[in-house]
Amino acid sequence: MPENAKFVYMFEEGSQKMVDLLGGKGAGLSEMLNLGLTVPPGFTITTDACRRYMKQSAFPEGMLDQAMKALKKLETRTGRKFGDAGNPLLVSVRSGAPISMPGMMDTILNVGLNDSTVQGLAKLTGNTRFALDSYRRLLQMYGTVVLGIHHEDFEDALTALKSKYSRKSDVDLTEENLRELISTYLDIYKKRGKEFPQDPNQQLQIAIEAVFKSWNSERAKAYREINRISDEMGTAVNVVAMIFGNMGNDSATGVAFTRDPNTGENKLFAEYLTNAQGEDVVSGSRTPRSIADLEKEIPGAYADLIKFIGILEDHYRDMLDIEFTIEQGKLYMLQVRVGKRSARAALKIAVDLVKEKKIDEKTAIMRIGPEILDSILHPQLKKTGKEVELAKGLAASPGAAIGTVVFSSSRAVELAKEGKKLILVRPETTADDVRGMSLSQGFLTQKGGMTSHAAVVARAMGKPAVVGAEEITVDTKSGVLKARNFSLKEGDTISVDGTTGTVYKGSIELESAKSSEDLDTILTWCNRYRKLGVKANANTPEEAKLARENGAEGIGLARTERMFLGNDRIPIVRSMILSTTTAERQKYLNKLLPMQLADFVEFFRVMEGYPVVIRLLDPPLHEFLPDKESLINEINNLQNTRSLLGGKREKIDELKKLLETVKNLEEFNPMLGFRGCRIGLLYPEIYEMQVRAIMEAAKQVDAEGRELLPEIMIPLVGHPNELKIIRERLVKVIDEILGPKKIDYKLGTMIEVPRSCLVADKIAEYADFFSFGTNDLTQMTYGYSRDDAEGKFISKYLEQNIIEFDPFNTIDRDGVGELMKIGVERGRKTRKDLEIGICGEQGGDPETIEFCHEIGLDYVSSSPFRIPVAILVAARASIKSERAANQ
Amino acid sequence: MPENAKFVYMFEEGSQKMVDLLGGKGAGLSEMLNLGLTVPPGFTITTDACRRYMKQSAFPEGMLDQAMKALKKLETRTGRKFGDAGNPLLVSVRSGAPISMPGMMDTILNVGLNDSTVQGLAKLTGNTRFALDSYRRLLQMYGTVVLGIHHEDFEDALTALKSKYSRKSDVDLTEENLRELISTYLDIYKKRGKEFPQDPNQQLQIAIEAVFKSWNSERAKAYREINRISDEMGTAVNVVAMIFGNMGNDSATGVAFTRDPNTGENKLFAEYLTNAQGEDVVSGSRTPRSIADLEKEIPGAYADLIKFIGILEDHYRDMLDIEFTIEQGKLYMLQVRVGKRSARAALKIAVDLVKEKKIDEKTAIMRIGPEILDSILHPQLKKTGKEVELAKGLAASPGAAIGTVVFSSSRAVELAKEGKKLILVRPETTADDVRGMSLSQGFLTQKGGMTSHAAVVARAMGKPAVVGAEEITVDTKSGVLKARNFSLKEGDTISVDGTTGTVYKGSIELESAKSSEDLDTILTWCNRYRKLGVKANANTPEEAKLARENGAEGIGLARTERMFLGNDRIPIVRSMILSTTTAERQKYLNKLLPMQLADFVEFFRVMEGYPVVIRLLDPPLHEFLPDKESLINEINNLQNTRSLLGGKREKIDELKKLLETVKNLEEFNPMLGFRGCRIGLLYPEIYEMQVRAIMEAAKQVDAEGRELLPEIMIPLVGHPNELKIIRERLVKVIDEILGPKKIDYKLGTMIEVPRSCLVADKIAEYADFFSFGTNDLTQMTYGYSRDDAEGKFISKYLEQNIIEFDPFNTIDRDGVGELMKIGVERGRKTRKDLEIGICGEQGGDPETIEFCHEIGLDYVSSSPFRIPVAILVAARASIKSERAANQ
Repeated sequence: MPENAKFVYMFEEGSQKMVDLLGGKGAGLSEMLNLGLTVPPGFTITTDACRRYMKQSAFPEGMLDQAMKALKKLETRTGRKFGDAGNPLLVSVRSGAPISMPGMMDTILNVGLNDSTVQGLAKLTGNTRFALDSYRRLLQMYGTVVLGIHHEDFEDALTALKSKYSRKSDVDLTEENLRELISTYLDIYKKRGKEFPQDPNQQLQIAIEAVFKSWNSERAKAYREINRISDEMGTAVNVVAMIFGNMGNDSATGVAFTRDPNTGENKLFAEYLTNAQGEDVVSGSRTPRSIADLEKEIPGAYADLIKFIGILEDHYRDMLDIEFTIEQGKLYMLQVRVGKRSARAALKIAVDLVKEKKIDEKTAIMRIGPEILDSILHPQLKKTGKEVELAKGLAASPGAAIGTVVFSSSRAVELAKEGKKLILVRPETTADDVRGMSLSQGFLTQKGGMTSHAAVVARAMGKPAVVGAEEITVDTKSGVLKARNFSLKEGDTISVDGTTGTVYKGSIELESAKSSEDLDTILTWCNRYRKLGVKANANTPEEAKLARENGAEGIGLARTERMFLGNDRIPIVRSMILSTTTAERQKYLNKLLPMQLADFVEFFRVMEGYPVVIRLLDPPLHEFLPDKESLINEINNLQNTRSLLGGKREKIDELKKLLETVKNLEEFNPMLGFRGCRIGLLYPEIYEMQVRAIMEAAKQVDAEGRELLPEIMIPLVGHPNELKIIRERLVKVIDEILGPKKIDYKLGTMIEVPRSCLVADKIAEYADFFSFGTNDLTQMTYGYSRDDAEGKFISKYLEQNIIEFDPFNTIDRDGVGELMKIGVERGRKTRKDLEIGICGEQGGDPETIEFCHEIGLDYVSSSPFRIPVAILVAARASIKSERAANQ
Repeated sequence: MPENAKFVYMFEEGSQKMVDLLGGKGAGLSEMLNLGLTVPPGFTITTDACRRYMKQSAFPEGMLDQAMKALKKLETRTGRKFGDAGNPLLVSVRSGAPISMPGMMDTILNVGLNDSTVQGLAKLTGNTRFALDSYRRLLQMYGTVVLGIHHEDFEDALTALKSKYSRKSDVDLTEENLRELISTYLDIYKKRGKEFPQDPNQQLQIAIEAVFKSWNSERAKAYREINRISDEMGTAVNVVAMIFGNMGNDSATGVAFTRDPNTGENKLFAEYLTNAQGEDVVSGSRTPRSIADLEKEIPGAYADLIKFIGILEDHYRDMLDIEFTIEQGKLYMLQVRVGKRSARAALKIAVDLVKEKKIDEKTAIMRIGPEILDSILHPQLKKTGKEVELAKGLAASPGAAIGTVVFSSSRAVELAKEGKKLILVRPETTADDVRGMSLSQGFLTQKGGMTSHAAVVARAMGKPAVVGAEEITVDTKSGVLKARNFSLKEGDTISVDGTTGTVYKGSIELESAKSSEDLDTILTWCNRYRKLGVKANANTPEEAKLARENGAEGIGLARTERMFLGNDRIPIVRSMILSTTTAERQKYLNKLLPMQLADFVEFFRVMEGYPVVIRLLDPPLHEFLPDKESLINEINNLQNTRSLLGGKREKIDELKKLLETVKNLEEFNPMLGFRGCRIGLLYPEIYEMQVRAIMEAAKQVDAEGRELLPEIMIPLVGHPNELKIIRERLVKVIDEILGPKKIDYKLGTMIEVPRSCLVADKIAEYADFFSFGTNDLTQMTYGYSRDDAEGKFISKYLEQNIIEFDPFNTIDRDGVGELMKIGVERGRKTRKDLEIGICGEQGGDPETIEFCHEIGLDYVSSSPFRIPVAILVAARASIKSERAANQ
């Protein structure tokens, strides 16, 4: 420890820049003083002193001496004396960490009061009752905060006293009552083996120590953990001369936001109370008055306040939250900090400040966190606190939805025709449910995780969903949803809050998302500064349209699975799968070709002028066949019915044949099985049909005079030869279709198998682009099956802090991210201009987008609904790295 | 091209060291000449010339001139003249690549013969018939090899001629017949639009070109691909003066191995024919004579031969394969190369050469490839060619077995009691089949890949297995195996060749593996030079015992799954799984504890003095429960039987409850689901019981005065916190058990999830050792489920050359190997002395073992039966890298 370490700063010695050393409150007070504003005299004991205290469980050498010297200065400036019975200086001892932790740490007011100074305070304020009440409060605060006496001890005594004298509330207590209460409080100290130090110096020292200690209180530690604040930081302690807003009608106290924190309007938003102390404003025991009245009541102080606020906003260039007190006509500023605000206000304030030329566009962007857009973009439940909770599950897709329960896709179709608003409730969803999902307002499932089918589809559709609500049971046969003590059936109304993962009984009012000019302005600015491209994952022309509207610069992932589904196609697809020869398979593929060609034509028209990355067929073939268990049951049932209806035997044989195929295709781990390019390689005719449909469609749309850029993407490549062979085959098909006609296209690959990252240099020889499929990459890098792991152990891992975050939501920098870095580096080693994007679920997550910017991806692709968030975060990442580079 | 490039070397200019330039044959002839042996005059055209020819499709400038000058020297030396009708020089034009490719490329004899020189040859040999026949052969060889005339054209003409003159065989043809045949042959040339060049120089040039071209013949390319020989190498061409072993009874030709190629015995193994040419020995038209006779017939040449062989063996320090010809009493050496030999002979020759001080131990080791041990260590089928093949599948576990077909584990138990030798035939095997497998000689399955349950267990048990024989169908209910046109039932005998993957009908004689003193000697030497430790994977004390006997230095992987199986345990384990509270679970675990404790005591006793790595429970819990499909069927059957036997309802309810649990535990991808340390973390009591059993057992065995080193291994760790938390919990249990007693133990982890390699630095903070679980690591790195992929697409990928090797057999250096390197590097960065091994299936594979040596692993752990192979390869890898370092 250096001999001359400085642990105490008078407010005039500090500044806002010293916030790490002086904490937020101390730095703010210093800064205001520097700006020429009036603040009470005071000093700050540094966070450094706190850190040292925590290490050695004792004040660092010299700290107390420095504090006592500073206290002397306060006495000089205030003309009062600490502990002087006639003219006592009182101080508040306030915590103040570098990062605001509201309500988490301790503050002790009125330090310096004792049996004799209480008289001096009475004389100074001309209010004996107030002085006694202040003393009583000090005893109570000191007893609980510093000495750990139970709060109840004091509260019980207070209640007993009120009951004894039939006083309704605290303010009804007389001076005499308060004297008796003080005496009772001092008895409590004795009973608990404690003593209230009458020596003000001792009070002060112990209060400082108590504030230091409160840094490591359980609730403070928990708060820091939740908010990811370092435990190392420590808190400063501010010792401030008490200013009294209750010294008559020329005294007052108040709080103000420099602009409206709800709307963002540039209008002072403040309240005050005459002849009162801060506590009174906060406690709500008196109704605060509008700031307009202050102009009439104490015009000088009001004028100063308006002046001060102007100075502060010009200086801080943001909306501020301030506290002030007026003592006998003189305004004192007690606190300044950047004000909390609603999402809507945040946008307006940022835009206004740019218009007012107080900040530049980049600063405005940096002030809009992605969570602000999240809450802007989704409708929310307007809760009253009287809602009946049915279940808690995973908050899989944000927003809120209200509808009547429906248990199957087919019923959803019928009920939707009747104009019903629906919530599809399923044990879990599959491709068969997609039709019903498209007709519902939101979804609730019992099983599945954040990247289960229901969750992924919900986010893609931008519909709210709560998934993996393991506490409910869904019996689709009898049509019953059991949740807590309720049993719901089709037609019962529920409300689903996908932002919090909660499901409520009945209908709750919705606040819908407001389209916002300010948002548009911010996004326009973002587009100026971001380097990362932003595309959307869209499987249908409707989704693609929405993506364009939301600002996407193309489609980064168009899955083609749905082109194999639908009532008109699934029988053809099943026949194709049951085919035993290539010729037979080709016959059915030929039937699919015109249908898929039409799909692509529609898609390309919608995305005119933009690139569209089309992923060829990915899922295992058994996903297009019926489920084994239901087939077995069906066969059993048929065999056991006594009916001898014609064709029963044939039907059983047919089902048995189908069951045989289902069994043959059955896999232990389909996720790691026969799917993706593995199917494409061994049944070349499937990918060839798809590419034929794509390029024929491209030719047609090109002939319409529309610009287009198809990018054909091969899934699940892990070995360069896979891509090499497929590329050779497909280029042959394309050349044949195009002939002399020239249409630009690209042929690239998903990078979603860990191996593909490691051999990216070799794969890049055959790829025009890479797109990181971080869903599968995460599954394989962790060895977590997303369909199983979320419900079975990831949620518990998160609860028990085994993992810090869900890697299916946010990219895992240490593992998956390392592989991505290797993939980017090796891929670009072979091909410098290789276009690289990401199309996994995490592509819409802010931390992930920032990471993608850092490792030099060309674009992210996310759900159409996440496009504004992606644009924002991309811009923030650019600005952040630019700023880091300039430092 | 340099002006003075040298493309032609006289034999006296070359040497063995120039083998890359001169090819094997040319270098050998040069070397023999240098050693003072007699070889025919000749010269070699270099591989460099061939490579240039391939590039430009023309002889390099100057090559022909050089060859012609060399030919002049041959004329001078032989006293004959190329193309001289009276005293013609004839030459052979022989291919000779740097690496022997027997029979793959072309050779043309008797070049220089034409309508006039054939007379000179007749005169020289005194045998007109021979001269004519030689000419006829040249025409035929030249026509087919050089000009691409169909072989059939010549054969048909020959057959027609023989039939016309009623000649039984070629040798019956008279001079007159041969003249007619020559004329017919020349007509064939004309008919095909070709011409036989009468100009010997032209013959020679075209023949040289033909040999060059044969380097890129389809069959040569295929051979190189299979044998991984570079296409870039090229072949040399040797032009050698013809020596005639058919110039009377003082002439002869023969071949010799310098030692017995079957037994390795140090005894000349040679055959010859008097008055004959090389072709006659090879064709088998005359029976060759024992070399002993030569001593009597041509004693001078015999003495030279013995002398020459001595010189050659001293020089080459290996068993050699030579060809020689004696022309009028003078011995000429035509070829020398290292001789092919049986596995047994290879061992004996290597050991003998060390004893004879011709080579050192390291050289001996480098001459024993691992495939030699493979064939020594497993019994083989003694085939006659008359076997009836039933099926081809994957050669999952080497060796051969014969037995009668059995379809279930329970029947296997009964039949084994009757003393039957059995082959267990199953669609696929599971843990339920292990008892039956242990009682069978070998296995055959319809499904599954090289690392399916059946394959892994087979290799672990050292029993032959053919798996994934997709062409068969196994109906276990009716007890029928359908294979090709046969239908076999229980009791029918089949023979399984796990080395080739073939299954035969009936019983085929076995040749059993011979224990070999030479092998022991080699392995003793290997232990002197290897750096890599060799441990075994062993799950039972019996396997551990075998591992010790085979030279393992400990157990690298003891799985503990079997300790949860067995008739006495499975009901307890199922109750444990069905438990709904920790207390209930603990109750059943307490029942398992003494049983598992006893298992470990036995294990530690067997492995006295050696470390034992014990892997805690790894598989998903549902593996201990019955299969869903059979439960559903059982319930359906019960429900539909009309019997009203007592307890039917209760039984159904019980089964339904079990089905419910099975469904709850069901996973889409169990491989990536709730297993390994994930279970250990969320049900801490399971691992705690296991560790209690291990350490109580250790205490007991230690008290017996035996040394032991338990190493506790946690499976499936992907995040450092997983290991941290488990370590803390288990160390607490261990401390409690040991108290003040000190027993050394280690606590480490499998590295089998890709992520664990990437964060190995952080994991190493909590690990005393790493063990690469390359089965799972390969599955996840490739995204291949081993249970699905082998049958579904890996075999097809291999067939279509999409992948070069099966990554479940041999480590994938580019992908999995990269991750391993990262894991080793990062792990040791944190902990320099971190012990690192491998315990995946690939640990017994030679290429993998070499890779493990290269990346600095401490040991490999393989099946007990692979230990000798591992020891050998480890030594070879050490010697190889030592030699590379000294270069």
